[in-house]
Amino acid sequence: MASLFAIGLHGGAGTIAPGTAADEAPYRKALLDALAAGQAVLERGGGALEAVVATVVSLEDCPLFNAGHGAVFTSEARNELDAGVMDGSTLAAGAVAGVRVIRNPILAALEVMRDGRSVILGCDGAERFARERGLQIVEPSYFATPHRLAQLRAVQAAAGERAVVDHDAAAAMDDDAPRFGTVGAVARDRHGHLAAATSTGGLTNKMPGRLSDSSIVGAGVYANDATCAVSCTGTGERFIRGCVAYDIHARMQYLKQDVETASGDSIAQALEPLGGRGGVIAVGRDGRIAMPFNSTGMYRAWLREGETPQAAVFAA
Amino acid sequence: MASLFAIGLHGGAGTIAPGTAADEAPYRKALLDALAAGQAVLERGGGALEAVVATVVSLEDCPLFNAGHGAVFTSEARNELDAGVMDGSTLAAGAVAGVRVIRNPILAALEVMRDGRSVILGCDGAERFARERGLQIVEPSYFATPHRLAQLRAVQAAAGERAVVDHDAAAAMDDDAPRFGTVGAVARDRHGHLAAATSTGGLTNKMPGRLSDSSIVGAGVYANDATCAVSCTGTGERFIRGCVAYDIHARMQYLKQDVETASGDSIAQALEPLGGRGGVIAVGRDGRIAMPFNSTGMYRAWLREGETPQAAVFAA
Repeated sequence: MASLFAIGLHGGAGTIAPGTAADEAPYRKALLDALAAGQAVLERGGGALEAVVATVVSLEDCPLFNAGHGAVFTSEARNELDAGVMDGSTLAAGAVAGVRVIRNPILAALEVMRDGRSVILGCDGAERFARERGLQIVEPSYFATPHRLAQLRAVQAAAGERAVVDHDAAAAMDDDAPRFGTVGAVARDRHGHLAAATSTGGLTNKMPGRLSDSSIVGAGVYANDATCAVSCTGTGERFIRGCVAYDIHARMQYLKQDVETASGDSIAQALEPLGGRGGVIAVGRDGRIAMPFNSTGMYRAWLREGETPQAAVFAA
Repeated sequence: MASLFAIGLHGGAGTIAPGTAADEAPYRKALLDALAAGQAVLERGGGALEAVVATVVSLEDCPLFNAGHGAVFTSEARNELDAGVMDGSTLAAGAVAGVRVIRNPILAALEVMRDGRSVILGCDGAERFARERGLQIVEPSYFATPHRLAQLRAVQAAAGERAVVDHDAAAAMDDDAPRFGTVGAVARDRHGHLAAATSTGGLTNKMPGRLSDSSIVGAGVYANDATCAVSCTGTGERFIRGCVAYDIHARMQYLKQDVETASGDSIAQALEPLGGRGGVIAVGRDGRIAMPFNSTGMYRAWLREGETPQAAVFAA
């Protein structure tokens, strides 16, 4: 047991309308493809950090999810992306916030972590760093998809005079699923090391400059070999105020809770009292996986070594 | 006891060389002046949130401390400022990161909190928001002081080819105190509400775009009426990775520690294993104040209602 790997991912949580199996098929395929990317790393004995990054790159590159290509738009019809990664074996972390030309923000976050001088780089400084490190730079239009632009226009039309709406209002007005499309992955490798990665385009019609929980260690991403690795998705401001990712760790560390109890209790006690909605994926040091959410659905997939890969959207 | 207010502040922690009483006099005066600004709010029955903001504004306006006027420079000889604030009674929070023309970043953080749509606004978006809200905008040169520019040039000369040095290297090369000049305040008001505020110019010779723990809820600033209010100062990257401010809350919440034990244990167990140095100021829901640090000194001042204001630099 202790030597088996485990990996989980999410493609966002929110008010997802039940559809037909045909509607869900492309999402399930994309989720399982991303899972396979991380699984391949872990099966050849690779590390949890490499696995979660490979998984998130796959999700960033897929236009179905709100991260990388296919990210949602700001109120000014731009894409501003956030991503963060953490290595549970060293507690090293890296993040970028508000970046607009880095093809894969999670790779820039990883590079910030490896560089080691900073944990979070924002905006122009992050982009310059990414260029210097040779990461792939794209035109801002790379991230844009017609679907997301239509979402923005629908939200703006419904918002009327309000140029920027809050997250709850956007959720209430936007009839297209998924509501909150952040992506993320957590993994435990065969060596017992944990890692977490999260990446997002944020919120449709968000205020320019708004930074999400995805790039905040302890809010939307956290990993510690002593306890768990966590990636969050949902109403980001509430995850920041609730320090949800670190709260799950703290419950395991100080209350000696298991990963399922800690994750569920954190949603119920740290997130919900703030009006927060969404979900988390967490893997414990023992390889157990928890994926609680309080929204109607959360795109997710998971695998424990030797078992069949699973994908799901709604509660079991 | 339960109805008495308490307030504490810091003006940075680090490797501070012992000097004469005359050397310390201007720092002590500035610390006590800032304390008096918060005290005045609390004595007339005002709230903890208003008190910590008034205190931090005073410290931002003082050129002695690394926040607002007198902030340290980036590697490109610019000033990029971060600030965050949190209201323990509502768990509302606001922050700005990487701002360059807002005279008092802590007032912009407060405005982000009051606006409520976002928790953290970065860079250009934060500055535009501040303009729209009528906050005082200044030329970037407002923040610059000859002393800080000399510090930058000294660090850069010592760094040689390395355009940007890490925090430890900067500390080792920079012979002028204080090393880490973040400012912050915590308070408990007569109504039992807690609040925390933190503001910084960051690190001398920092990489452009580097965001500090000061604007990260749970890292450099946190407040919760159920437990404590916390403001941190030191090697910011380590405070982010250790989620130090939230860790102190979690120890009080889950381990039922008092504020002194939680603060001291968090420095020893969440910060030091990461190589972190610096200190925290914390006020508990019972009005007790803790100010532990593992650096040679921390500029600080504190007051409990009915007692004499105190200021200190080194360990007692």
